[in-house]
Amino acid sequence: MLTASVCTIGDEILIGQIVDTNSAYISKELNSIGIKVNFMLSVPDEEEQIVNYLSLSLSRSDIVIVTGGLGPTKDDITKNALATLSGSSRLLYNEDQLSVIRSICHKRGIELSDLNRDQALVPEKCEVLTNNMGTAPGILLRKEGKLLFSLPGVPYEMANLMKKVTGEIIKTKDIEDIYHKTLITFGIPESSLANMIAGWEDNLPSEIKLAYLPDPLTGVKLRLSKYGGNINDSKKAINEHFAALKDMLGNAVYGEDNDTLESVIFRFLKSKSATLSTAESCTGGKIASMITSVPGSSSIFAGGIIAYSNEVKIKSLGVDPAILSGSGAVSEECVRAMAQGARKMFNTSYAVATSGIAGPDGGSVEKPSGTVWIAVAGPDFTVAKKAVFNGDRLRNIDRFSSETLNFLRLNLGI
Amino acid sequence: MLTASVCTIGDEILIGQIVDTNSAYISKELNSIGIKVNFMLSVPDEEEQIVNYLSLSLSRSDIVIVTGGLGPTKDDITKNALATLSGSSRLLYNEDQLSVIRSICHKRGIELSDLNRDQALVPEKCEVLTNNMGTAPGILLRKEGKLLFSLPGVPYEMANLMKKVTGEIIKTKDIEDIYHKTLITFGIPESSLANMIAGWEDNLPSEIKLAYLPDPLTGVKLRLSKYGGNINDSKKAINEHFAALKDMLGNAVYGEDNDTLESVIFRFLKSKSATLSTAESCTGGKIASMITSVPGSSSIFAGGIIAYSNEVKIKSLGVDPAILSGSGAVSEECVRAMAQGARKMFNTSYAVATSGIAGPDGGSVEKPSGTVWIAVAGPDFTVAKKAVFNGDRLRNIDRFSSETLNFLRLNLGI
Repeated sequence: MLTASVCTIGDEILIGQIVDTNSAYISKELNSIGIKVNFMLSVPDEEEQIVNYLSLSLSRSDIVIVTGGLGPTKDDITKNALATLSGSSRLLYNEDQLSVIRSICHKRGIELSDLNRDQALVPEKCEVLTNNMGTAPGILLRKEGKLLFSLPGVPYEMANLMKKVTGEIIKTKDIEDIYHKTLITFGIPESSLANMIAGWEDNLPSEIKLAYLPDPLTGVKLRLSKYGGNINDSKKAINEHFAALKDMLGNAVYGEDNDTLESVIFRFLKSKSATLSTAESCTGGKIASMITSVPGSSSIFAGGIIAYSNEVKIKSLGVDPAILSGSGAVSEECVRAMAQGARKMFNTSYAVATSGIAGPDGGSVEKPSGTVWIAVAGPDFTVAKKAVFNGDRLRNIDRFSSETLNFLRLNLGI
Repeated sequence: MLTASVCTIGDEILIGQIVDTNSAYISKELNSIGIKVNFMLSVPDEEEQIVNYLSLSLSRSDIVIVTGGLGPTKDDITKNALATLSGSSRLLYNEDQLSVIRSICHKRGIELSDLNRDQALVPEKCEVLTNNMGTAPGILLRKEGKLLFSLPGVPYEMANLMKKVTGEIIKTKDIEDIYHKTLITFGIPESSLANMIAGWEDNLPSEIKLAYLPDPLTGVKLRLSKYGGNINDSKKAINEHFAALKDMLGNAVYGEDNDTLESVIFRFLKSKSATLSTAESCTGGKIASMITSVPGSSSIFAGGIIAYSNEVKIKSLGVDPAILSGSGAVSEECVRAMAQGARKMFNTSYAVATSGIAGPDGGSVEKPSGTVWIAVAGPDFTVAKKAVFNGDRLRNIDRFSSETLNFLRLNLGI
């Protein structure tokens, strides 16, 4: 099996100023085409160190993916390191990247500076993977039958270039066929899921691998993979086990592969020509921004209100002041009234509402920080539930939001 | 100066299933006591590999911190690797950790299993840092004047043990200081910034390092660092250069160290007892969720509306239908009316509004995908501007949102 190492460059990583998320993304992508990552490295912005560690990586892996250190500024020196490794220090302008740089500067109304232009400089013995989303090109160095890819550190530029990277690898290396199918669940903790499917898991043929991929915003993903062998046999085998797994988990299952709670809700509402609105207190717009992250969401999402103050809850959503003075804003009565109010205000088929305490302050003994009430209002029903989490503020807001979208999904019968 | 390497163990990291946040935490802690992390590693759950990479780390750093591979199912691996490195394969039960394990099992109502008991086994030539929050002990191996610490991978157990680690390091090693100061800017692209400060940068004393940290949501951060020497001299030197840099960049500078656009806006509005509301179209709640991510934001943020459909723009914000049929929703007139409408609707001192095309669809020749109009309305002014970006949908939404918060910041005079 082909091996790869992933190397991130940047002092900001080594002083702990930022968490490196690129390496995980890259590994997942490589894994999905059947390449095993045998180690990861993070190294400083020092040319000698970079050359040293990249040589080490090339000696231990068939493929090396480097990110970072390609920006226009002086602390970005990866290119010189690549030139050194390539055996020629000569850099040449790459026309394709240069024209991207020109159009980006033009779009932003920035004058094209030498620094911008020089981002199109590439070691003469390297190839270019044009970066259409940013100014720094992806670079490929072929060395003794091995492939070294250098990508910009900006996550979405890196992610976009990884498509070209995996394409190039598949073209040049002979890798085994691999088939993955991912089942996506929400509402059952990873450990409970594992218990529920233990028997089934024990009977999986050894060539089919199961991976648990938990995520607070999407739920727990269960990925079945088969490496090698005839691709059609792999599909047949995996699809059978996939179907059995799906049956076992009932309505905890909401999607496959790249689905998200917001994308399946979008598809369902669109197919029914139904519409949605939101009334958010503690989630502060997070739910609306998840829904509107789906391309085309304007066809199902009319709008939403962030009713942060009680005045707004009363004035815009028609929440009875007596509820706020009585049960308080974090209560079943309040979220029910908020959801019904949003449905009226935005004239939509459905509406969701949240009211809770994200923390760190504002909690009490009866309503600790991490408590949320959520509601869904539809043409002929309004339902509400309470949930309690114990993360920090941002984590709680995420959990509140995905819990609400899942509650909506279940009440839509998806 | 003293160097350290950080090594995380676990297949779940190498297949990209989880993002390693421990390394950043550990580096920050080491950095704060003046130790420079010279590289980070992530390696698989394979004893031979672990021994191999830990030896490599010991050969290149004075201190090595290892996390992971100490759980009840994996402990053989890391512990045997440590035993091998220590020169004796013999493991002994550690009484302190054993009693912690007993009490944890008792609390959880679990019977003490052999697996649990064996977590107290430690290589005889190693010392123990008792872990009071979990069953796996911290382990210290002293080898040829170097220190190798092995910690459990559970983040809060690791974080708790890091206090003992830094204490031990301070006790045994004499360490130099590190001083960092970070200036945060917005609105000037990294390459233009570099041109503006090129002369200043060239005259920086060699012992002061400058790093550029671009981020689409916070702007470009400029970090000055000085390693070693007298801490007061370092502070004095860096603060002087920091002040000069700040003067050079004028109102592009909005904060220091951990500030964000939303946190400086929050602080300013709070100090003035002023309030804010939002009217978002294309940003779909992202701006509100950025503002409400700040703890205590309810004291300045009354609420916001996501006016996704024209009906909502007209009905809730009072946008003149003639504007929508004439100039369209993505226009200066529309965002001005939206901002003024939000200010009225939520009765706030200030309001911001956005209307644009996040993409991928909906663009035209005059208004390509990536185009946004933003506005700020205040007690006695309304201002608007247009901006164009070229990312994918999510990236455009992020850029639209930070551009809007920066436009608000500038108009507040922050």
